[in-house]
Amino acid sequence: SPEKTASKKMLRHVVLFKFKDSATPAQVKEVETAFLALPSKIKEIKSLEWGTNNSPEGLAQGFTHVFFVTFDDEAGREVYLPHPDHKAFGKVLGPYLDKVLVVDYWTQE
Amino acid sequence: SPEKTASKKMLRHVVLFKFKDSATPAQVKEVETAFLALPSKIKEIKSLEWGTNNSPEGLAQGFTHVFFVTFDDEAGREVYLPHPDHKAFGKVLGPYLDKVLVVDYWTQE
Repeated sequence: SPEKTASKKMLRHVVLFKFKDSATPAQVKEVETAFLALPSKIKEIKSLEWGTNNSPEGLAQGFTHVFFVTFDDEAGREVYLPHPDHKAFGKVLGPYLDKVLVVDYWTQE
Repeated sequence: SPEKTASKKMLRHVVLFKFKDSATPAQVKEVETAFLALPSKIKEIKSLEWGTNNSPEGLAQGFTHVFFVTFDDEAGREVYLPHPDHKAFGKVLGPYLDKVLVVDYWTQE
């Protein structure tokens, strides 16, 4: 969970996926499992939270999955992005991915 | 901060804004301030965290602002969405808004 000590600013990495219509539930599960395995492989990931969209507002633009990653700082993100295990995840995701959206931000409260 | 007790599932409400190019810094600040005032007016908001995009990946599709709202449950969201103060916020935002994207999810860890 994205525990955040009151004073400590954290760097959030918010990743949204829309899967191809052709992606099967098993393939989507494979991607979820692969993402959830990343914290054990990349220590710069301080926390990971995720879920599937249930907004009633109809403003999700087809995105179904949200992965909410936390780093201590930009140095952590800089290790993560080119990390071999992150690249390997990208290969698992690639064939099933229709759209991805990423926004990162420093917590400001 | 989105403190989350380890066991307790929370309902996250992730709101992304892209402002019109014509929106001035002061107008954007007005929207930020108005959003940040909502927790004091709508008690169903259990926490609010926000920030502006600094992702180096170039996958933000123009979205600059992220507001990460937490409710206890869907009942909290159902009070929030039609709430007069939320509607009033929408009026402040409206003239400056280019795009909005909303995804909600139950935390799953």
